[in-house]
Amino acid sequence: MSSEEDQETGNFWSKIYDFWNSVQPLVHSPLPTRDARSLRPPRSPIATSQLETRTTDFNDDYNKDLEDIKRYEDFTTIDWVQDAILERSRMNALRTAAIENRSSWMMWLHLSYEAGQAWIVVFIVGAIIGMNAAITDIITEWLSDIKLGYCRNSWWLNQKFCCWEIEQEDGSCEEWEDWSRFYIINWFFYMAFASTFAAVCAHLIRSFAPYAAGSGISEIKCILAGFVMKGFLGGWTLLLKNVGLPLAIASGLSVGKEGPSVHTAACVGNVVSRLFGKYKRNKAKMREILSASCAAGVAVAFGSPIGGVLFAFEEMSSNFPMKTMWRSFFCALVATAVLQAMNPFRTGKLVMFQVTYDREWQFFEILFFIILGVFGGLYGALVTKYNLKVQTIRKKYLKDYAVAEATVLACLTAYIGYFNIFMKVDMTETLGILFRECEEGTADYEGLCRKAETTRMIWLLLLATIFRTGFIILSYGAKIPAGIFVPSMVVGATFGRFVGIIVKSIHLAYPHFPLFTSCKPDVPCITPGMYAFLGAAAALGGIMHLTVCVVVIMFELTGALTYILPTMITLMVTKTIGDILGKGGIYPLNILQIKFKINNRILLATVIRKDLVIMTSGQRLEEIEQILLETNYRGFPIVKDKTSMILLGYIGRAELRYAIDLYKKLNGRSNNAFCFFDGDSQNSEHLNLSKYLEIPFSVSSNTPLEIVLDLFKKLGPRAIIIETLGKLVGIVTRKDVLVYIKQLEKT
Amino acid sequence: MSSEEDQETGNFWSKIYDFWNSVQPLVHSPLPTRDARSLRPPRSPIATSQLETRTTDFNDDYNKDLEDIKRYEDFTTIDWVQDAILERSRMNALRTAAIENRSSWMMWLHLSYEAGQAWIVVFIVGAIIGMNAAITDIITEWLSDIKLGYCRNSWWLNQKFCCWEIEQEDGSCEEWEDWSRFYIINWFFYMAFASTFAAVCAHLIRSFAPYAAGSGISEIKCILAGFVMKGFLGGWTLLLKNVGLPLAIASGLSVGKEGPSVHTAACVGNVVSRLFGKYKRNKAKMREILSASCAAGVAVAFGSPIGGVLFAFEEMSSNFPMKTMWRSFFCALVATAVLQAMNPFRTGKLVMFQVTYDREWQFFEILFFIILGVFGGLYGALVTKYNLKVQTIRKKYLKDYAVAEATVLACLTAYIGYFNIFMKVDMTETLGILFRECEEGTADYEGLCRKAETTRMIWLLLLATIFRTGFIILSYGAKIPAGIFVPSMVVGATFGRFVGIIVKSIHLAYPHFPLFTSCKPDVPCITPGMYAFLGAAAALGGIMHLTVCVVVIMFELTGALTYILPTMITLMVTKTIGDILGKGGIYPLNILQIKFKINNRILLATVIRKDLVIMTSGQRLEEIEQILLETNYRGFPIVKDKTSMILLGYIGRAELRYAIDLYKKLNGRSNNAFCFFDGDSQNSEHLNLSKYLEIPFSVSSNTPLEIVLDLFKKLGPRAIIIETLGKLVGIVTRKDVLVYIKQLEKT
Repeated sequence: MSSEEDQETGNFWSKIYDFWNSVQPLVHSPLPTRDARSLRPPRSPIATSQLETRTTDFNDDYNKDLEDIKRYEDFTTIDWVQDAILERSRMNALRTAAIENRSSWMMWLHLSYEAGQAWIVVFIVGAIIGMNAAITDIITEWLSDIKLGYCRNSWWLNQKFCCWEIEQEDGSCEEWEDWSRFYIINWFFYMAFASTFAAVCAHLIRSFAPYAAGSGISEIKCILAGFVMKGFLGGWTLLLKNVGLPLAIASGLSVGKEGPSVHTAACVGNVVSRLFGKYKRNKAKMREILSASCAAGVAVAFGSPIGGVLFAFEEMSSNFPMKTMWRSFFCALVATAVLQAMNPFRTGKLVMFQVTYDREWQFFEILFFIILGVFGGLYGALVTKYNLKVQTIRKKYLKDYAVAEATVLACLTAYIGYFNIFMKVDMTETLGILFRECEEGTADYEGLCRKAETTRMIWLLLLATIFRTGFIILSYGAKIPAGIFVPSMVVGATFGRFVGIIVKSIHLAYPHFPLFTSCKPDVPCITPGMYAFLGAAAALGGIMHLTVCVVVIMFELTGALTYILPTMITLMVTKTIGDILGKGGIYPLNILQIKFKINNRILLATVIRKDLVIMTSGQRLEEIEQILLETNYRGFPIVKDKTSMILLGYIGRAELRYAIDLYKKLNGRSNNAFCFFDGDSQNSEHLNLSKYLEIPFSVSSNTPLEIVLDLFKKLGPRAIIIETLGKLVGIVTRKDVLVYIKQLEKT
Repeated sequence: MSSEEDQETGNFWSKIYDFWNSVQPLVHSPLPTRDARSLRPPRSPIATSQLETRTTDFNDDYNKDLEDIKRYEDFTTIDWVQDAILERSRMNALRTAAIENRSSWMMWLHLSYEAGQAWIVVFIVGAIIGMNAAITDIITEWLSDIKLGYCRNSWWLNQKFCCWEIEQEDGSCEEWEDWSRFYIINWFFYMAFASTFAAVCAHLIRSFAPYAAGSGISEIKCILAGFVMKGFLGGWTLLLKNVGLPLAIASGLSVGKEGPSVHTAACVGNVVSRLFGKYKRNKAKMREILSASCAAGVAVAFGSPIGGVLFAFEEMSSNFPMKTMWRSFFCALVATAVLQAMNPFRTGKLVMFQVTYDREWQFFEILFFIILGVFGGLYGALVTKYNLKVQTIRKKYLKDYAVAEATVLACLTAYIGYFNIFMKVDMTETLGILFRECEEGTADYEGLCRKAETTRMIWLLLLATIFRTGFIILSYGAKIPAGIFVPSMVVGATFGRFVGIIVKSIHLAYPHFPLFTSCKPDVPCITPGMYAFLGAAAALGGIMHLTVCVVVIMFELTGALTYILPTMITLMVTKTIGDILGKGGIYPLNILQIKFKINNRILLATVIRKDLVIMTSGQRLEEIEQILLETNYRGFPIVKDKTSMILLGYIGRAELRYAIDLYKKLNGRSNNAFCFFDGDSQNSEHLNLSKYLEIPFSVSSNTPLEIVLDLFKKLGPRAIIIETLGKLVGIVTRKDVLVYIKQLEKT
């Protein structure tokens, strides 16, 4: 049980990988609207799994559509409730032992170690995540700059360190050499490096760790919701994702680092916590550490510890108690502190793009905030929709050409991007430039703030917005480590700056237009940098669909707290547009939070699995062993007798096996023995299994399905027993419900 | 049912008021540590309530201890699950109707109104909360300043507006006159005003709305957890709290406005949403609006919208789904926007004390951050502990002297505070002053930044810290509207500044001490303002016990994002100290989140109520009416027959009454009729009640109590039915469990 996540088999991985790719279109597509009458009960009862991993036959009609769904069967789920009970009894046993051996200080030491273990694990995990992020950052910067040139005396330095404190006044620096003096040759170098990086990255990923491709956030959400995906968070994934990420980003593809950063963080969390007995044994506890790791992952990606905690809460976890929040807080704190101590950017600051906005915003600008908000919503919907189409095409035609695809994409991005200053350099740098509150004469970048350049800038920004959106649609989902947050922010920032410059020009041209009455004369009134900031927030919100966390991340990124209301207004609009246009952000697969709004009340009966393999109290040992041989269910409901069908409990396969083996060892081969489950028969000749019984959740068969979903979601049992008037009639597993929902969506 | 919260009867109120005062010591006191053996099952089964409001006899032994507990019986709880089901079927009915009458555009309009209602309500609530806050702020400022003097030409202006743009260079202003030229007479005026304000406030509260005293947060938490407290959120409370709050704060007592602000916000939410049918009918839905209102209340109190949302999430709600988060976000946004638009402070800024910290912090300062963190934790524990003692004394001896008590306290506070600049002026102003990053020569306040004044400042700060802590302990709980957050922040800030000034002096005296090697020469290295900021965060964290929310509030208050890591480190230390010293912050009564850590697994059996009044299918109408007459239970479990005890469902008293009345109206008086609940008998002569049945949650009687608690906490039913092998054996209500836990705590 404990080694579930240790085993990594290539075969299994590719299967999971395919599964994700195949299931994503399903998941992303908005529910077709339908009215109540068109909703008929599905033709085949697809409540297919008891608690097993076998695949099931579907009716022919559904066979094709349900190919994807069937793959759910590959995964197993954990049982939160039973895990919690186990952990509790373990701790109780420990405490009781400690109390009884009051003298034994070793015991007490052990007890406090047990209590503090979580904090120790979280500390180690946080520290490693911080270090890892710092190293990745340094490598990424160097790789990004090497596309443009090299440091003359010390090739291992990136442009910034090469020119450290020797920069000329015009921004150039002698130590840093372009690859050649000819623009066209530099362009060639730029493309060549970009393609090479992409090719190497895609090749590494394909050969060694296909599951390190993509962002990984959807999968981690599934894992946090209780699914077990063997090896997805293993050491091998960690290594390859760490190597691949700098290459992918440096290749200039429109991919970001935050998704992969969360994935590597979760890998660290998994790898480290496996070393501790408590977490190795208990999958539910392990998920607390994973939540904390995710928070730290976002924290180091954005330099935003609180944003990370909120991300872990809003996006990742279906189950986020206060205790986990503390752990996440601590983990994010340690990770960010280590990152800041290592100081990869040598700014000494955690805030990535420190912006000081001196100017207040004006109430009339709300009009433009709304425009930016609408843009964010549209952007989110558009990218989600077309990215899905691209995914479908990729799945169909490009499955075997992952490396070529990535290479071509990188080459194309470099080909076009080289001529647009807002696409040429690193995305993080671009963001910093766009956020600046610059006026003519002050810190300028390629003429961004110069009035004479306004028209050129407007065009460049518009083109950058359009092209990058296109590249994001094409690139997200390619078989390289790739996030979508930072590219989205850049798109939003270019669009925001575009709007800002236009508004500013209008204001300068017609200062007495009624709209601008609240502007003071002779003082700059419109701040294009703020528009860029809000645009970035809107695009991020559009793609993520998470408001509170986005607001906090944006502030932690920039420190621009003056604009809290504009940001909230913009994001509220984005959220509204996003809700109208489609369901959920780009990561909607929060399996247990799937919205289940249908017009009629669906009866639980449709998902119940009724052909159960049950055991009765008083059954012969022989028969029970036969059942164990013939099936591979993970557990069995136990009834009093097959007439009354009164439920006694539920027994796990492993426990049953163990008890039988023990009995045989003691009593020899005694096939005539009977098994009892109800604890009354104390006859030592027979096998009394009552102490191995679990108490499952049971609900009445006329409970609405939504209440059952709530039970699964909020308490997390693996299966719920269905009774009618006290009689066992069936069982519902989390998987059954999910498969059913998936099927409904296809209808 | 809908008018439950409309009725306000003085009698009932004083009862609730007493209840809260009496229960608080119970709740605050940390659980006595005990080992496993001393924990015996309680002697009397106190599973006392079926679903009723009657009081129950306790065994003599417990009578005294359980006085407080019995009062739980005064409250009723709502059933989240049934409310959700009702709302869902209502919406379904509406939707179905809409689909069937496709032509009727009125229906569609109605449907969209239904869908948008929540947002409309939240918008109105937010706007009123914002306006209300602005008005309260203006009145408070005027009242605070009138203690010191008056505006010569326009008495209705406070000092700031009186001196608006006519201030002299030395900070004085001719328009504003002190009451006299003599220090001693001013002191007398100061005390006289303070005492008068306190007396008027306490008198108003005692006479008209005793439930408007205190902070109200604990009670709102109970209400959000599903308790019904009639009138606690009524219009009368709203009015009196709004009138009393400015008086209480202006009286100079060490009380803050954030708790009362949350209470008034919740009142607004309740009053407004009662005007809408959806919320009038559905108590569970109503609580969503209340959560959002609380967020807005904190948002306007601190100018911290995101902090408000997080407060509502972390502190207030036991049940905070994503939807509520959006509503809270929106409500906080609207409230803050309105507040900013009304701009009561005329700064045009939302950030209350804008601080610009230019300097980085040094790693060696972590040592001092830890000191501040420890202070915060100690402060929280100390204040909680001694405030409880004061509460006990107050309850015992001062019950009838509320007005005198408040007056004396205010007089005392003014008497001492007048001579310490950090206690004399408004607390908000003091905070702003203490946070400043000032150096000699720059913006100074009474010599705070002058090197020559260092020793005097150190003494003043230390005295302010000690005295204010004392006054907080004495004042919190007095019968006036009173919060504890802002006073705590001021205590933390004075202590922080105290530490900061000392560290700075040491640095200036011994710049070459090994600790200070990372400081650059000739540049200020230590920023006492940052220490004040961290001290305030620590004290706030110590009293609130909520880290993430505190961090966000502090940043939104000041905009000091540079110090995110120091703040997190300090708060982590505070939290650790707080956890070691005691349980929970000053508001620990989050009824459904009570930690329930006991050594042995407690059996559900101890809380089950077994002497049920049940009905059977096929019972005579006459008998059923008799039961209705003789009991006042809110509902009854229905079994198939009394032998098998197989549960059919649960019926509410109101539904049963309604069905019987309807039947009688149609069939005349027919006492020979039988009532059926199982839907099989379609005989029209008999009364078929099956469609009125609710499906209750049922669990097996050997389920661990903790799982049942989880069910209550996470799904929120009012009662859970207990079965053994399919037979009904008892019922557990939320109240039974709470009463049981309370009793355990007393053991």
